[in-house]
Amino acid sequence: MNKQSSRRKFISTAVILTAGSTAIAKTLTMKTKDNKLAHQVYFWLNKAEDKDKLIEGINTLKKIKAVRQLHVGVVAATEKREVIDTSWGVSLLVFFDGIEGEASYQTDPIHLDFVKNYSALWNKVVVYDSTIV
Amino acid sequence: MNKQSSRRKFISTAVILTAGSTAIAKTLTMKTKDNKLAHQVYFWLNKAEDKDKLIEGINTLKKIKAVRQLHVGVVAATEKREVIDTSWGVSLLVFFDGIEGEASYQTDPIHLDFVKNYSALWNKVVVYDSTIV
Repeated sequence: MNKQSSRRKFISTAVILTAGSTAIAKTLTMKTKDNKLAHQVYFWLNKAEDKDKLIEGINTLKKIKAVRQLHVGVVAATEKREVIDTSWGVSLLVFFDGIEGEASYQTDPIHLDFVKNYSALWNKVVVYDSTIV
Repeated sequence: MNKQSSRRKFISTAVILTAGSTAIAKTLTMKTKDNKLAHQVYFWLNKAEDKDKLIEGINTLKKIKAVRQLHVGVVAATEKREVIDTSWGVSLLVFFDGIEGEASYQTDPIHLDFVKNYSALWNKVVVYDSTIV
């Protein structure tokens, strides 16, 4: 291989590698940054009668700028099966544009106020953060 | 109270009770039957490398008639906190029109095929069924 063809080969290889890395980077970015995020939270209440109060508190979170969709739930009357957890009291499902949205929600004053004003109502909380693929 | 006025009182009381029961029944129906249902499932895989295979299987569920929306997720790279469960592998979130939708989904041949063909991939599954309020 002469110098020129060697150089041509180096350039074409570099182009292929760059294209490949860009594709990989794009895939990784899609999976960790830009994809929609579902923030799923389950609350176990100290007193069952505080359900409406907690729902009222959760509804204040709708005003947070990063929130795209927010759904509040209670245990559904679906057929009981061993795999279904029905021990919780209130569920919260929030969609964000990506992990930055969730991060900004966590530190939003409305969210901090919610935790301050309502956290005495629950004794356990479990969170599942899903990146939608 | 004479017989006629007693009968009139009985009828008006019966009308009020019926109207009341209907209102209560309607409220209960709203909360347990007609409201949107979020069926949230978390799968723990036997082998992490089977993630794509399970996602492929979950995507077949989109064809089930009762499914209104279906989202497949993986653990998001949100900031780690004690309350966040990141031990699962794949998440599934399905919206139905109500509990009947979820019941029809459970017995749909496409769902039964999914369980038959893919259940060997997971060793644990946890389901939270939320009625959206």
